[in-house]
Amino acid sequence: MKSLKALIDKQVPAHSLSQEFYLDEAVYRHDLDKIFMVEWLYVCHRSQVAEAGDCYAYDIADESVMVVRDEDLQLHAFANVCRHRGSRICTAGQSSHKRLVCPYHAWTYGLNGELLSARQMGDKFDKCKFGLKVLQLQEFCGFIFISFAANPSSFDLLKKGLHASLKVFDLANTKVACHEVHSTHANWKLVLENFNECYHCGPAHKEFSASHSLMLDKEKQRVFDELISKRAPAAGISAEPVGFSLVDERAQTHAPYYYDRYALFKGYQTGSEDGRPVAPLLGEVEAYDGGASNVALGNLTYLLIYADHVVLYRFTPRSVKLTDAELIWFVRSDADLDKDVDIERMTWLWNVTTIADKDIIERNQKGVQSRFYQPGPYSPMETYTVDFIKWYLHKLSK
Amino acid sequence: MKSLKALIDKQVPAHSLSQEFYLDEAVYRHDLDKIFMVEWLYVCHRSQVAEAGDCYAYDIADESVMVVRDEDLQLHAFANVCRHRGSRICTAGQSSHKRLVCPYHAWTYGLNGELLSARQMGDKFDKCKFGLKVLQLQEFCGFIFISFAANPSSFDLLKKGLHASLKVFDLANTKVACHEVHSTHANWKLVLENFNECYHCGPAHKEFSASHSLMLDKEKQRVFDELISKRAPAAGISAEPVGFSLVDERAQTHAPYYYDRYALFKGYQTGSEDGRPVAPLLGEVEAYDGGASNVALGNLTYLLIYADHVVLYRFTPRSVKLTDAELIWFVRSDADLDKDVDIERMTWLWNVTTIADKDIIERNQKGVQSRFYQPGPYSPMETYTVDFIKWYLHKLSK
Amino acid sequence: MKSLKALIDKQVPAHSLSQEFYLDEAVYRHDLDKIFMVEWLYVCHRSQVAEAGDCYAYDIADESVMVVRDEDLQLHAFANVCRHRGSRICTAGQSSHKRLVCPYHAWTYGLNGELLSARQMGDKFDKCKFGLKVLQLQEFCGFIFISFAANPSSFDLLKKGLHASLKVFDLANTKVACHEVHSTHANWKLVLENFNECYHCGPAHKEFSASHSLMLDKEKQRVFDELISKRAPAAGISAEPVGFSLVDERAQTHAPYYYDRYALFKGYQTGSEDGRPVAPLLGEVEAYDGGASNVALGNLTYLLIYADHVVLYRFTPRSVKLTDAELIWFVRSDADLDKDVDIERMTWLWNVTTIADKDIIERNQKGVQSRFYQPGPYSPMETYTVDFIKWYLHKLSK
Repeated sequence: MKSLKALIDKQVPAHSLSQEFYLDEAVYRHDLDKIFMVEWLYVCHRSQVAEAGDCYAYDIADESVMVVRDEDLQLHAFANVCRHRGSRICTAGQSSHKRLVCPYHAWTYGLNGELLSARQMGDKFDKCKFGLKVLQLQEFCGFIFISFAANPSSFDLLKKGLHASLKVFDLANTKVACHEVHSTHANWKLVLENFNECYHCGPAHKEFSASHSLMLDKEKQRVFDELISKRAPAAGISAEPVGFSLVDERAQTHAPYYYDRYALFKGYQTGSEDGRPVAPLLGEVEAYDGGASNVALGNLTYLLIYADHVVLYRFTPRSVKLTDAELIWFVRSDADLDKDVDIERMTWLWNVTTIADKDIIERNQKGVQSRFYQPGPYSPMETYTVDFIKWYLHKLSK
Repeated sequence: MKSLKALIDKQVPAHSLSQEFYLDEAVYRHDLDKIFMVEWLYVCHRSQVAEAGDCYAYDIADESVMVVRDEDLQLHAFANVCRHRGSRICTAGQSSHKRLVCPYHAWTYGLNGELLSARQMGDKFDKCKFGLKVLQLQEFCGFIFISFAANPSSFDLLKKGLHASLKVFDLANTKVACHEVHSTHANWKLVLENFNECYHCGPAHKEFSASHSLMLDKEKQRVFDELISKRAPAAGISAEPVGFSLVDERAQTHAPYYYDRYALFKGYQTGSEDGRPVAPLLGEVEAYDGGASNVALGNLTYLLIYADHVVLYRFTPRSVKLTDAELIWFVRSDADLDKDVDIERMTWLWNVTTIADKDIIERNQKGVQSRFYQPGPYSPMETYTVDFIKWYLHKLSK
Repeated sequence: MKSLKALIDKQVPAHSLSQEFYLDEAVYRHDLDKIFMVEWLYVCHRSQVAEAGDCYAYDIADESVMVVRDEDLQLHAFANVCRHRGSRICTAGQSSHKRLVCPYHAWTYGLNGELLSARQMGDKFDKCKFGLKVLQLQEFCGFIFISFAANPSSFDLLKKGLHASLKVFDLANTKVACHEVHSTHANWKLVLENFNECYHCGPAHKEFSASHSLMLDKEKQRVFDELISKRAPAAGISAEPVGFSLVDERAQTHAPYYYDRYALFKGYQTGSEDGRPVAPLLGEVEAYDGGASNVALGNLTYLLIYADHVVLYRFTPRSVKLTDAELIWFVRSDADLDKDVDIERMTWLWNVTTIADKDIIERNQKGVQSRFYQPGPYSPMETYTVDFIKWYLHKLSK
């Protein structure tokens, strides 16, 4: 594809992308083909498909996937497309079934995806040829991922590399406490560029910046890094950064990951407005260390782990200029959501922050559409975004 | 057009269409050119344009047609486009006029389409050259059809073939009792595929299936066919199937048609929830025979005739992924809509059924957009849909 | 661009445009490139950017411009695009700033457009290279225009030519009394074609036609022209037509303009429903002359000046089939909007007229989309529209 190659070649390193990457339908289709149809995508948590017959359907762009637990409690991922005339079988979100029955003509699939019955199809019809299309699936710490690709990257390094850091939080035994979607009228890359840097936190997020040392530049962060390197282990939490970046050589064949803990400012035990707890301590965590862990699970899924709750961030393209930013809050599974968890206080910070981000990202989209837009240089505080862009261009050029 | 030909050639017989036919803008433009701009389209009933000066405008895709009755009570069909600067002259639906006056600059046309006056056009202006563009028109049993083509297929066989079957219902002397539009976010072909088969009736339409033997497979229907073959004639209604399919050789030059009567289940006199009448018997019908006639008037217009009312189905493409499904209910013209007709009970069945269809058709559209969609085999219960697809591909390949 | 040339060549003189000009995305992009990115565009009035730090941002298609007054009270026009990652800096409309601070990462520009500070950009970063992009700006009678082109046409002839006619109204010392936007689902050219002719006034605007002699044909207008040629000078107002058309040779290098005063019908002192005044007399105007002046300021901005208020018309394309028609009412700057101005009566006429225009223009758009649309001949009463089309085709063919 020559013109795409030309676009990639003219890109100045460590500068924002040229206009076409944010507007062009053809580029968007390449983004889907080379990124979203290849990478691991977070679908749901094991607590959402706990029982035999439980199903969780997740829609992305024009695709839809069903994650289903069968009678043997095995998980499967299927394309949510009936083999008869293509109807969606399940609606997005959670549902529960004895069989997967297409609502159109009642073709009936087993929980393992086999076509069990199709009424009135005549003698020559061979059911065996019409099972649901199977997709790749991985589970880690209760988080369930799928890939639309036949041979996605390996999850081995990620699983090994994050095991020790995440163990104390017992994430497999958490549950969803709340779920919000912020539809953002912008290309998905502007949303990810925004998510991957905290250069904008100071100007744009006074709520976040009041409590999270991440908003500081590297130099000023150092003193807080020293604080957390003591406080976290005292609470049983690792403060040791691990992982490799999406531009690391290993990321060519393995899903990248990272774990890093940073300090909240004085007086903040967790990510609430007043700093006070919002839920019971996670897993085996012994105390509020006043910290937060940034975690990447592959290229497109991120966690922020406080001592008492987790926020998962998922970014779902809907069209070239529309992206859903989703926030999913998890607490320990035995917490009573009515008595033990203050959902309003727990969700406050990331709702206000994401609403502010929606606004600045949409302004960014409008701006890059101008003929006066010229890709500008990223700041040293935007290195993750620089890596993201580098990775993106590399993926696209394949 | 090579790529369209390639698409058509790779189509597997008796399988649903490949994805492009449901999504592609270029295919949609061909659909308009080769189907909707050629076939006979139902516009309105004679009762809606009964008097001199009555006009009915019908919009489809980017086109609009006016059916107008002139002072000699002749009907005309005109393109609803002023010859000055192109403005629409009449708004969609019914209206009444002494002259057809464009609301923009008051160019004034006679009811026969001649330009009568155009203010201030100078001396050289020749009114005779600016009459409204005339379209082909046919009336049958009071139903008025137009074609945007200069030489549409002949209506002769249809008129002769259906005359005897429809006479008893005296459809020319009916009137509109109700009119509903269900905007469906799907390609028009998915809407027609749905309409043309009752394989989905069992799973998707419990209300319809409670009363209509059409939901049964051929074998189980046989006993009900025997019942109606006695009950219908006893009420003066034909139970004799007539007509030819849209894939019949005759359909190359003549508008196809069919008439067929089938039984309602025991206790149902008409298509109401409780089976009891909803309006006075149509025409010369002598009794409730507990039956319903499926009628096709050309390729795109369908009737369902109960003993006491008629439902007309019209499908109007609005864009590649948007189609209006319209339902129009008719009762005998001398019925008092307030006293003799129970509109709520009359419209109940086909409103619930069409709302359910909207949902499954929209799921179908979403599904066929997936890259995991693969055209699947139709059931023997979907033969009309198979014919529809065959006809469609034939038309498109011309 | 061959196919565009072919389209232009097949255009019949003094006939409406062929369909493609009103529908086609590629033509629309040419319209933006060759018209809106080149011509002078009205942004705001000096009263809206009176103080140092005042800013007015105007959005058009995918572009946005900021007009800013600096500490030395000089006006500047900048592309509203941050040089970092392209975010819009100011929101559309009026605002006030000490510095122009991008809300995303706080890059901070002086009121003269220089980049003053950009946090954390490293040592090699050269601020001087990242000033805001400067656009051309002109002010005339307090009306501020910008051009996105480097070398737009000259404003000299316009300034000289209109000075004497407009002086009495003291337009620089007016202020905005009201502002309405009528979003019209039609191509911008259909909106301008409508604005540029009064052939439709009789049929479509009974309110306007009750009071404005412009609705008459040339011959009938003559007697009213004689009336105003006496009444206007008696009130200190010029009734002398001046200017040159957009198809005049001079318009190749200079912004065209015109000024012409015409009579209101008997009993009308200004453009109100009952003809009575709605605001204090403008500038040095001595009496109600029962007249109105049509003024063109360049190719795309128009004024209608009554004795006591001014209406400015701006037309902003939003997409190929969507155009905003804006009305901005001005009164003398020392008028008390609560006591001296009757805003409801002042805005009545042009709101009802523009709402009616929206309807007929949208009907026009629907009509030209039909395959039965054929460009028709303009009337001698549509000469300004004929000129507009001629100018448009000339611009597009360059």
